[in-house]
Amino acid sequence: MYKETGLRSILKTLSWRLWATLITATIVYLFTGRLDVAAAVGGIDLLVKLFLYYLHERIWNNVNYGKKEVVSRVFWFTGLSGAGKSTLAEALYAELKKKGYKTEHLDGDNVRHIFPKTGFTKEERDRHIRRVGFLASKLENNGVFVTASFISPYKESRDFVRKLCRNFVEIYVATSLEVCEQRDIKGLYAKARAGEINHFTGINDPYEIPENPEIIIDTSKESINQSIKRILQYIDKK
Amino acid sequence: MYKETGLRSILKTLSWRLWATLITATIVYLFTGRLDVAAAVGGIDLLVKLFLYYLHERIWNNVNYGKKEVVSRVFWFTGLSGAGKSTLAEALYAELKKKGYKTEHLDGDNVRHIFPKTGFTKEERDRHIRRVGFLASKLENNGVFVTASFISPYKESRDFVRKLCRNFVEIYVATSLEVCEQRDIKGLYAKARAGEINHFTGINDPYEIPENPEIIIDTSKESINQSIKRILQYIDKK
Repeated sequence: MYKETGLRSILKTLSWRLWATLITATIVYLFTGRLDVAAAVGGIDLLVKLFLYYLHERIWNNVNYGKKEVVSRVFWFTGLSGAGKSTLAEALYAELKKKGYKTEHLDGDNVRHIFPKTGFTKEERDRHIRRVGFLASKLENNGVFVTASFISPYKESRDFVRKLCRNFVEIYVATSLEVCEQRDIKGLYAKARAGEINHFTGINDPYEIPENPEIIIDTSKESINQSIKRILQYIDKK
Repeated sequence: MYKETGLRSILKTLSWRLWATLITATIVYLFTGRLDVAAAVGGIDLLVKLFLYYLHERIWNNVNYGKKEVVSRVFWFTGLSGAGKSTLAEALYAELKKKGYKTEHLDGDNVRHIFPKTGFTKEERDRHIRRVGFLASKLENNGVFVTASFISPYKESRDFVRKLCRNFVEIYVATSLEVCEQRDIKGLYAKARAGEINHFTGINDPYEIPENPEIIIDTSKESINQSIKRILQYIDKK
């Protein structure tokens, strides 16, 4: 919940008074034809109202009626390792923050770093995604935008999260396995090919392609700016 | 983030204009001694300002300067099964909601219901509490108050959560084992005594008493209302 500071009320008082007193004095002048009366009325009006307006602002500060929460959303980036999920999610996070929205970024690597014993079997992945989705939905329910970047290879877990959320935007980062493997930023594909990593999505673990994602992005065919622009256009349309 | 609706601005305009125009007309009357001029100035002033004030409100609606988030907290209720954690947490939740605060209630039983395979060994309990604490801290960081009721028997997990949060209020619900066992609302103590439940805190699993809790409550010695009042007094002092 936001409360407005006294300084905000003072600034607002001054910005209003400037115009209001000028108008009052002008009207008085038009009716009386006397500048001295106009100035005197304007002057006293100014002093009285400066105080009253401030008081009025402070009283309304405690009235919650008519304050409406901005509709928040969960942007769920799914796709292969190296597809560009985190990069896109971070860029979107920055854009949403710039707009003044409360936003939280949840990233697969970071969350697993906090909970290091989360495994990669189907069941472990499923429980992991469900927990993160629960967190995302609780944030969303409280007016916080969420950008979530998780491989989240199973349709069932993604659909579980979709059901928990009010406004779930599934963004399939559809960069092809070939491109992801070529990039291999973390060197994980090489290790998986060498058999050093089990349960590596795309190599020795499945990825279930989203059937009805809200947005599809191929980072090998579109710049980050273009993708973010498309996502923001999607929100504006809603 | 909140935005103010047009209706709120209209109501605020009317509540201001009522006083403002009366004062303007009175000042004009005092200076000119003429009721007709006072009425005319007041009338025109009214019409012009109704429109201008509304516009002024709508413009400030888009200015975020001086809007300050209320400081949120995590109220963590820890104690034996049947001590009164959930009852207290729910009562506090209702009070915080009444104050207009964004509040989320996280309850041990409910969260375990969503994630049914969470076990009760020390390690499983620890990971469970850490995950819930992570969720609580993310909510708190975004201005949401959290009331959390979890047995959370281990000091280490509670301290982990304390470190994640900005304003962590540990409330030790210190109702004695004897009283909790007498109540035995869910019939769990009987089952634990009969050896049907393993890892039951207080019977065949340890409870580490908080060393420096912010608040201690014994529900056998104090009514719920009294306890809630003490918690609210604690917030007001901070």
